[in-house]
Amino acid sequence: MDAYKAIVSHRAVRHFIDRPLSDEVLARILRAGRWAGSSKNAQPWRFIVVRERKMLNQLVECGRYADHLRSAAVVVVIVTEPGSFAAFDSGRAAQNMMLAAWAEGVGSCIAALHYEARARAILGVPKDLQVRLAISFGYPKPDAPQTIEGRPREQILVTIGRRPLDEIVHWEKW
Amino acid sequence: MDAYKAIVSHRAVRHFIDRPLSDEVLARILRAGRWAGSSKNAQPWRFIVVRERKMLNQLVECGRYADHLRSAAVVVVIVTEPGSFAAFDSGRAAQNMMLAAWAEGVGSCIAALHYEARARAILGVPKDLQVRLAISFGYPKPDAPQTIEGRPREQILVTIGRRPLDEIVHWEKW
Repeated sequence: MDAYKAIVSHRAVRHFIDRPLSDEVLARILRAGRWAGSSKNAQPWRFIVVRERKMLNQLVECGRYADHLRSAAVVVVIVTEPGSFAAFDSGRAAQNMMLAAWAEGVGSCIAALHYEARARAILGVPKDLQVRLAISFGYPKPDAPQTIEGRPREQILVTIGRRPLDEIVHWEKW
Repeated sequence: MDAYKAIVSHRAVRHFIDRPLSDEVLARILRAGRWAGSSKNAQPWRFIVVRERKMLNQLVECGRYADHLRSAAVVVVIVTEPGSFAAFDSGRAAQNMMLAAWAEGVGSCIAALHYEARARAILGVPKDLQVRLAISFGYPKPDAPQTIEGRPREQILVTIGRRPLDEIVHWEKW
């Protein structure tokens, strides 16, 4: 898929069909994350790849809106080192993975792991690292409901679609 | 350019030739940032587009390694709302912009604005918003030196290239 098309057509996908990702597609997703740039090239991330159903069901309990992890073919948990730009840089790596997936027809959605201590215990993540986010990956379910945790998405999201460019872009100064 | 190719071939570019970006290329970059996903679709970002030389020279003084902003055709300053996931989400928007640029042959590099108060004053950014990062965009200079601020990049970066996948990926658990 064309890069620009992948970027502007990419949307969160929360409902997946029961179809695994091939090893090759998974490898592309992980390589995409690996190649992200970072401050001083610190690469402040580690990725935990989770596919076992039992583990996915446990991860669902680590976030308030994490139900989409349950039916994912693969979940990538992002573990980060502390650092001023680690969160920003992890966002870059996450976006790379989600776009590489999208280009293969694979949807994805990020889940905040609000209950970090629980996620840490389940996954065995060392105490000096953060584990705040996970990404579900899977083939999109056709005609899936526009819901989040069974509720209309309008109840959860700040807005639908994106703000107009005129509203978010300033020229030369604020 | 193919999405996956754009993602894995993307590298930071710190040295630019004196060639402006067309309005169309700049619009693609901004639209790419606009379409990034974010937690609860909050879109916690605003972009200040800077092209005036005088302003670019002032921005250079806002970061310790920001010299590459000086010769950029365009700089996009990222302004963010406070929030738990604003930094992570801004990383997603930044990556979208840099990949959209790269697909057009335009290089880019992120500059940390370590002296945020100075950047805020120069740009007139309200106090309740953060202004910690700027991205330079421009056409890459051929045979540019592998230096950062005139020093060998090995002196600044944690490492060259990327860690092997085996080192950053865990399976099922840490």
